[in-house]
Amino acid sequence: MKCSVPKGTRDFLPIEMARRNYIFDTIRGVFRAFAFEPIETPALENLSTLMGKYGEEGDKLLFKVLNSGNFMEGVDFADDYHRVAPRICDRGLRYDLTVPFARFVVQHRDQLTFPFRRYQLQPVWRADRPQKGRYREFYQCDADMIGSPSLLNELELVQMADMVFARLGIRVVMKINNRKVLAGIAELIGAPDKIVDITVAIDKLDKIGHDGVIAELRDRGLTDGQIEALQPVLALNGTATEKLDQLEKTFAAVEVGLKGVAELRELFGYIQSVGTQCQVELDLTLARGLNYYTGAIFEVKALDVQMGSILGGGRYDNLTGIFGMPDVSGVGISFGADRIYDVLTELDKFPANLEQSAQVLFINFGAASLPYILSCAARLRAAGVSTLVYPDNAKMKKQMEFANRSHVPFVVFIGEDEMRDNTLTVKNMAEGTQQTTTLDDLLKTLTV
Amino acid sequence: MKCSVPKGTRDFLPIEMARRNYIFDTIRGVFRAFAFEPIETPALENLSTLMGKYGEEGDKLLFKVLNSGNFMEGVDFADDYHRVAPRICDRGLRYDLTVPFARFVVQHRDQLTFPFRRYQLQPVWRADRPQKGRYREFYQCDADMIGSPSLLNELELVQMADMVFARLGIRVVMKINNRKVLAGIAELIGAPDKIVDITVAIDKLDKIGHDGVIAELRDRGLTDGQIEALQPVLALNGTATEKLDQLEKTFAAVEVGLKGVAELRELFGYIQSVGTQCQVELDLTLARGLNYYTGAIFEVKALDVQMGSILGGGRYDNLTGIFGMPDVSGVGISFGADRIYDVLTELDKFPANLEQSAQVLFINFGAASLPYILSCAARLRAAGVSTLVYPDNAKMKKQMEFANRSHVPFVVFIGEDEMRDNTLTVKNMAEGTQQTTTLDDLLKTLTV
Repeated sequence: MKCSVPKGTRDFLPIEMARRNYIFDTIRGVFRAFAFEPIETPALENLSTLMGKYGEEGDKLLFKVLNSGNFMEGVDFADDYHRVAPRICDRGLRYDLTVPFARFVVQHRDQLTFPFRRYQLQPVWRADRPQKGRYREFYQCDADMIGSPSLLNELELVQMADMVFARLGIRVVMKINNRKVLAGIAELIGAPDKIVDITVAIDKLDKIGHDGVIAELRDRGLTDGQIEALQPVLALNGTATEKLDQLEKTFAAVEVGLKGVAELRELFGYIQSVGTQCQVELDLTLARGLNYYTGAIFEVKALDVQMGSILGGGRYDNLTGIFGMPDVSGVGISFGADRIYDVLTELDKFPANLEQSAQVLFINFGAASLPYILSCAARLRAAGVSTLVYPDNAKMKKQMEFANRSHVPFVVFIGEDEMRDNTLTVKNMAEGTQQTTTLDDLLKTLTV
Repeated sequence: MKCSVPKGTRDFLPIEMARRNYIFDTIRGVFRAFAFEPIETPALENLSTLMGKYGEEGDKLLFKVLNSGNFMEGVDFADDYHRVAPRICDRGLRYDLTVPFARFVVQHRDQLTFPFRRYQLQPVWRADRPQKGRYREFYQCDADMIGSPSLLNELELVQMADMVFARLGIRVVMKINNRKVLAGIAELIGAPDKIVDITVAIDKLDKIGHDGVIAELRDRGLTDGQIEALQPVLALNGTATEKLDQLEKTFAAVEVGLKGVAELRELFGYIQSVGTQCQVELDLTLARGLNYYTGAIFEVKALDVQMGSILGGGRYDNLTGIFGMPDVSGVGISFGADRIYDVLTELDKFPANLEQSAQVLFINFGAASLPYILSCAARLRAAGVSTLVYPDNAKMKKQMEFANRSHVPFVVFIGEDEMRDNTLTVKNMAEGTQQTTTLDDLLKTLTV
């Protein structure tokens, strides 16, 4: 029988667990410093909670769970499979942490104190085509605040991202945009349905130049008049503040655009006031998650590695509306733990000695010394020292090989002398030295 | 739209997360002290990995995940639904952590050092009928050692269980049996297929008395001769050692039974040598997991609460055999985190103040004091103090209500005086006192 995991899923070995936990602990520590509280939602959600929230493509990528019992009863299998699937599946696997969070807020609104900040570190599932850096089962690390329109929330998310990547030692650039500015641009040129086409084209300015962008805009169906109206946006340059000044003039009477400029101005003002370690840029081509973002849009990229974004986020003014609780504004960020893992690996930035394996191994010489060994081991373990007793009275060579391969730093030998004198002979495996000591002294060495 | 989670699944609010993490951290701490290393396996496994490993009933209780794309192609839906399901589902949700671990060991054998000890804290899914204390999505906390037949492994599992429940403050009894003894009894009376019937009947000895048990054994199809041969087992009494002495005589030449007695003798010898805080009993009626246990069988029950077992485990000599890697002996235990949660709740044994909410809240008086507040907050957060700045310049009453409902212990007020003097006015919410202090002093109070 062939042993394997499903395509796009992974096992995590102890060393990988240690590295992943290093990332999770760093993120969790920052979330807690900013007073976010942990919640968890079930992996299984009602399919009705998930369907229609991620677009048509998203509905296809939902993993659907077959009903138990006779799922076939009363179902017409001559119908199209798209229509059959939701009839034989009432539940699906969580696709992200945002929609379940919205459902959670509505369901538990009476138990929560608003503004409410929660964080959530859990796996999500997508039936995407697996490829390098894209998995079907992967972890998201989300922090959202809900119930306050203040831009101080946006500031704190920027600070949190900055703190996490500084602590992980990853040099990054944070890009910020605002959906209202994008809406303003579309309104300005009279092409409200072309936001995505416009941003995709503008995004290539560095690569294909001004004329290239114009050609692309024309390919994407913009009229000459619209392209002409877009000129001031294409010509934007300078610092964030300078760009915002130019935009404000360009928008003139486009209200939504001016609101976006004002929000960005306030946010960049805060950011300059507190300062960040990472680069923060205004990027008018940033358009991720247009489905539900209504204000700020965030994205972080690593500077020293070629990799997609390692954080995304934004403000959504009406996420809980889909579950019947309107007018609750939220803003959040999501760290891509798997990509951060890949970045740290590529940069070789994981701390050494992360793996928590045994610190002490007692060599097993058979029944005579066992009671003595077990009582020493019990004391070490009670003090939290990771301790192994080799379980079998195997040949010394085999036991030492095990010690070497397991990277145990201290190996203890107990013979008649040690039992008589109430001592231990301890070999320091890194230094190759050996000395006789007491349990108390060993404990002190190990728990300092 | 109605907001709910699927039957048998749950959301966890921050207070529940804090309590669950208290249990997980306690268990994890003990696992680490005994040098177990963490691994994780995917929630999704190939259905071929899971099917046929949990009996016919288990196959039915597996959550199966519908294939993506046109799952209907080439499938005959006129067939029985039991046969259709595995044709339209290649993957299923993990049913326990043991079978995935066996698969993991076989798949990664070349990367592991044996004897290998792993722990794993992950959810599992079963399409069981939900009821009090039984969920469809729940967490298991497993520790297994694989690749060593030594009974020292069994001893360490007993010690670990003992340490966990002592640390959680739950008084428990640990019951131990051995599959070989059960096999010996069945052989002794010539009814090898009746092990379960025999143990179920004997288990009722306290409730229905000697004659009741005999009547039940007869109902379950045992002959008078078999019941007669079972008499010495029914008459067993005394300490573990005394029972083992009687059993040894009874078994006379039943080899497998004698082997079981010898194993139990060795294990109880070790346990007596190291001592435990909990009661440890030999229980010949314990027969859980007969499907794959081959040696020791463990179970823990709380003494002060009516509840099913809160830990189970045992030795399985050939678990990896199903994946083509024979002769690797393993032994493990599994903590039932959800039931432990219920026990601690019922006994009111959760430590107070587990919830990690904000320690400090800065009242928001508007733009003038914001830069000062943000710089104070940044310093507290960098030091790991969970800090909130109220995001909106709301009425004082509203902000203080928020502080009360969120149980924030310290509320900070910044006015002109504080900014001029570089101080903070801090209200201790528990004591109702208020004093003006410096950031350094506040930091010292909070990080001691």
